[in-house]
Amino acid sequence: MAGGALGERDIIRLIQRRLTLMPDMPVSFGDDVSAVSLVGGEVAVLKTDMLVGATDVPLGMSLFAAARKAVVMNVSDFASKGVLPSAVLVALGLPKKLATKKAVLEIGDGLNAGAREYGAYVVGGDTSEASDLIIGISLFGTANQNSLMLRRGARAGDILAVTGLFGKSAAGLRLVKDGCKASERVRDVLVDAVFNPKARLREGLALRGYGYVSASIDSSDGLAWSLHELARINSVGFFLERVPVASEAGEFAAGNSLDAFDLAL
Amino acid sequence: MAGGALGERDIIRLIQRRLTLMPDMPVSFGDDVSAVSLVGGEVAVLKTDMLVGATDVPLGMSLFAAARKAVVMNVSDFASKGVLPSAVLVALGLPKKLATKKAVLEIGDGLNAGAREYGAYVVGGDTSEASDLIIGISLFGTANQNSLMLRRGARAGDILAVTGLFGKSAAGLRLVKDGCKASERVRDVLVDAVFNPKARLREGLALRGYGYVSASIDSSDGLAWSLHELARINSVGFFLERVPVASEAGEFAAGNSLDAFDLAL
Repeated sequence: MAGGALGERDIIRLIQRRLTLMPDMPVSFGDDVSAVSLVGGEVAVLKTDMLVGATDVPLGMSLFAAARKAVVMNVSDFASKGVLPSAVLVALGLPKKLATKKAVLEIGDGLNAGAREYGAYVVGGDTSEASDLIIGISLFGTANQNSLMLRRGARAGDILAVTGLFGKSAAGLRLVKDGCKASERVRDVLVDAVFNPKARLREGLALRGYGYVSASIDSSDGLAWSLHELARINSVGFFLERVPVASEAGEFAAGNSLDAFDLAL
Repeated sequence: MAGGALGERDIIRLIQRRLTLMPDMPVSFGDDVSAVSLVGGEVAVLKTDMLVGATDVPLGMSLFAAARKAVVMNVSDFASKGVLPSAVLVALGLPKKLATKKAVLEIGDGLNAGAREYGAYVVGGDTSEASDLIIGISLFGTANQNSLMLRRGARAGDILAVTGLFGKSAAGLRLVKDGCKASERVRDVLVDAVFNPKARLREGLALRGYGYVSASIDSSDGLAWSLHELARINSVGFFLERVPVASEAGEFAAGNSLDAFDLAL
């Protein structure tokens, strides 16, 4: 890494090294969420992540969609653990040019939509002036500690399963940024995957309820990276019989001389 | 406000208008913290606010001090409610030029120092690339709902009290930015107030324990603004017999033809 800027995972690893560990942490560092013990085997589940205008908001995405996405990307982490978020807090960094009534109301509507779609409420927050749009989101929920689906727990012989098909948001990003070709039907599906992402909360809650899941990870960062993480943490390997590619991503790849597997992974 | 950028409080008020209210919120919008009901009269206390490089980190402030301050400014809100924070989460936005091992370790040390100083632990977080340094902090703690010291509750006849003297950070900021005059002793105290702020957590916890406080507000944004808020929320007025000015702020004002009351308010 000499001379170059550190990547996100290096930064997180370096910071973790300098932290005093909370005794008996219910969820270890590096999982999709954090947790703190309450009474009676319950834990408070916590998550924070920020949306940054320059990197997370492609051209053409509305402020409503950006604010909603900031909430949904955090809900997706809760979903992967099977936890219902109850409260959302917002730390908003707003450039002067976005400090208008119209822009702020649109952000408010997007925050509320993202929260209500998953049963949560925005209960507070704060705002600052910033040079780029920053939407920092914090989530809170409670769960029984023993039922959480953590990244750790996969064993040899387990079956690998996903809650949806891959490749749509990667294809959609190329459509939005590079103007590739696609039929109107395919374009609508792919662009929607970028502008209006969904968290698999219903699936996560159901899976936690069944109690058959040994380990789980949020796959928003891509299938390949998620499997790499699960393999590393659990000292297991994966044998993929079939890469779960969305049909629209397949059509898009075929029409633009791209590899559908690259989009999915 | 026609044509001009909205202020922070206008932005918060506009966003609140668009939010679906959580039923039976234990702490209403606009207090120093948010809360969610747990079982047995306990509440989860939550707070998030971000430190922004350009506006919150004066020249000469180290990354260690900036990261520590990001934590402490949130702890100060918990302190004003009399709540011990147990967990800290961090959403870090880092410009490429700060994505170096040295910078990141300094930030990690500052985050840990800010948390441990007040009994809390950093339990998680995430990082993104951003155009300016952004340190978003989320705090979690628990408390008995009925013992929280809220902004609402002041009555005519109450005594107004503060947990410390005012004017040091306002004077310190002028020293750091404009290079005013001050003796070395005064300079040390004032600059320390800017670079190494303290949260009055011990005082807040003790005051909540005594049970005599009818209302409380974090006064980090200044005495005048804090009293204005308390007056507005509680429909009361205040009669100040004495403005609580720190002696160092008084000396600094005298030596630079400034009004010590202006610094304190």
